[in-house]
Amino acid sequence: MELNDVLAARERLSGTVHHTPLEHSRTFSVMSGGDVYLKCENLQKTGSFKVRGALNKISKLDLGAGTAVYSCSAGNHAQGVAFAANRRGVEAVIYMPLSTPIAKISATEGYGAKVVLHGDVFDDAKERAVADCKAMGGVFIPPFDDEDVIAGQGTVGLEIMEDIPDADVIVVPAGGGGLLAGVAFAAKCRNKNVKVYGVQAEGAAAIAESFGKKTKALDKIFTIADGIAVKRPGDITMKYINAYADGILTVSDDEIASAIIALIERAKEIVEPAGAAGLAAALCGRYRHIFGGKKVVCLLSGGNIDVSFVHKIIEKGLVSRGRQIRLSVVLPDKPGSLENVSRILASFGANVIAIQYDRVNAELSLNETILHITCEVSGAEHGKRVIDAVRAAGYAIL
Amino acid sequence: MELNDVLAARERLSGTVHHTPLEHSRTFSVMSGGDVYLKCENLQKTGSFKVRGALNKISKLDLGAGTAVYSCSAGNHAQGVAFAANRRGVEAVIYMPLSTPIAKISATEGYGAKVVLHGDVFDDAKERAVADCKAMGGVFIPPFDDEDVIAGQGTVGLEIMEDIPDADVIVVPAGGGGLLAGVAFAAKCRNKNVKVYGVQAEGAAAIAESFGKKTKALDKIFTIADGIAVKRPGDITMKYINAYADGILTVSDDEIASAIIALIERAKEIVEPAGAAGLAAALCGRYRHIFGGKKVVCLLSGGNIDVSFVHKIIEKGLVSRGRQIRLSVVLPDKPGSLENVSRILASFGANVIAIQYDRVNAELSLNETILHITCEVSGAEHGKRVIDAVRAAGYAIL
Repeated sequence: MELNDVLAARERLSGTVHHTPLEHSRTFSVMSGGDVYLKCENLQKTGSFKVRGALNKISKLDLGAGTAVYSCSAGNHAQGVAFAANRRGVEAVIYMPLSTPIAKISATEGYGAKVVLHGDVFDDAKERAVADCKAMGGVFIPPFDDEDVIAGQGTVGLEIMEDIPDADVIVVPAGGGGLLAGVAFAAKCRNKNVKVYGVQAEGAAAIAESFGKKTKALDKIFTIADGIAVKRPGDITMKYINAYADGILTVSDDEIASAIIALIERAKEIVEPAGAAGLAAALCGRYRHIFGGKKVVCLLSGGNIDVSFVHKIIEKGLVSRGRQIRLSVVLPDKPGSLENVSRILASFGANVIAIQYDRVNAELSLNETILHITCEVSGAEHGKRVIDAVRAAGYAIL
Repeated sequence: MELNDVLAARERLSGTVHHTPLEHSRTFSVMSGGDVYLKCENLQKTGSFKVRGALNKISKLDLGAGTAVYSCSAGNHAQGVAFAANRRGVEAVIYMPLSTPIAKISATEGYGAKVVLHGDVFDDAKERAVADCKAMGGVFIPPFDDEDVIAGQGTVGLEIMEDIPDADVIVVPAGGGGLLAGVAFAAKCRNKNVKVYGVQAEGAAAIAESFGKKTKALDKIFTIADGIAVKRPGDITMKYINAYADGILTVSDDEIASAIIALIERAKEIVEPAGAAGLAAALCGRYRHIFGGKKVVCLLSGGNIDVSFVHKIIEKGLVSRGRQIRLSVVLPDKPGSLENVSRILASFGANVIAIQYDRVNAELSLNETILHITCEVSGAEHGKRVIDAVRAAGYAIL
């Protein structure tokens, strides 16, 4: 691949995909010690960068009439291929495991693709996709390990270097490695002094373990960041990553979840777990030696997160930040006890959101009951004041 | 006010506030029957348009050394004034009621303002703010009823008409009316054929009731959209609204909540309830005669929504869209019953997120218990299949 391939990809994509915004964030700069910019591929068509690689690949194909493209994905690649094929007037057939959520099926069908549900897991669906593609004489569109796909993802790197030519560091979420390979290559072609780091989830860090060595496949992976949960990176992607990336960082699922909440609160952006991994690396504090005092671009690679998952992440975040407290109060089992505790909570401005009585508990005497209370408070300090007040009124808190 | 005042405001604001993005939305176009664009003031500095009016007002003041600006707000105006004063090197003192959430206090202090907490309700805080301001010889910065503030908000209208000169309709959330007055005036100056509509919450529709008549004050207001919950619009704002706006629409809190979820899911944008009112009007279906076939700009006026509120809105939305089901199953009170029901739920792919036993219920016989189950499902149809399967296994569902 040469820079010309990425430049040609940009020509092919022009007018169909967005040159996405690059936003400066004062808040994240303060939090990270760097000067942080967000590259918002979550605002890209189909909600992720994947459409770039798919569109470049499909645009270069010389397909006979009636020839379809095939792919297998339950995620962003499915929507990218579906959208790209539709824009090029090509039929797309996307294979997904039977367990795929309806929302993802509808989104892919919404871009005009045919969806085939097959098998319990991804590998079953993929096997069938490859077999059907071969039988029908179609063209398979790989998710990352392909020069044309990598060149397409590389256009993100061109946009970053165009918008902020003096960037010091670019941080890129990495699973199969297509985005990281493309961005590292394109950015380094523009300015060889820029540093490009990949970020992986701790529980799925195959690129981190392969970097500079033989490419490794993981037996098991576990992370909330489904978009970068890949057991084995590509051979082609690893070639470019080894040549052009400066290192691979890892972040925990908790750090990713915190970054998602921070993006909602401070940047008003919805980002999926994989997409938040780059910012998580900047905010977690363990990589200050890389980001401190530097102009840092965190690539938000996608925004396709289910609202029910946003719901769970916020819930966890509210508890871990002390915005929700849960307390179990031992009450004498007689009229008026609940009223008493309720009055204390109300007078301290704690908003009760869930309450449960528990009368059958081995640790209790017969005339006691436990009240499990969940309250909203304004922060850890407020929570402590509420708990102290309940204790001061003579109630034991377990 | 003349167009020149708005143009001068833009000069004053230039370089300090963002020219916010205008995004086309294919999804919302299909949903509304119009051709929908989103004007993203949720991505503005301080998270809302309010900084524009405050900065224009403060920039025009000729303050002696040591003179401070004063204001009263628990919302976006507080942050707008604090930020604007800071940028102009002026001290700001912001009064807020005692009940103000800590997050809002910290955000305002974060922009360098002094926060004074006083009184139980807004009116108490405001009275004290005005009195202190007078006693200290300061300048009070009103939230909406002021020509300089209106001219500042009008710069949003200039940006819209610059980015999409052939817009047919602009939809603007309205409470006190400053944004609506400014945008209607500026947009009509640019193109007299553009229609500008205000949108209010049903439970706080003072401008709707005042439009073209004597300005009315409401006794009571009730809405989730705190940013536009205003009992009495301004006299100056109503003068401009009566002269330049084409009508006032109203939306329900449920319609606003749906718009917030749609923005998260489809546009990856976080918008506060007031900020989503304009899009809610386009999506609710009751105003197709206004939006159908037209180029419509929905102004997203702000993004300052507490994550715990996002949490509640998603929760409500998941239930109302059939993504969560709650069922109460009557079980024989013997070992194995729970296992049986659990197996059915699992085999149909329903994910249990909460469960509760209820053995004390007047409608039950002594050997029965009720199991309250909350499950995640992929949609209403899936939910129905799950419920049918539990019934088919012989369990009564209440």
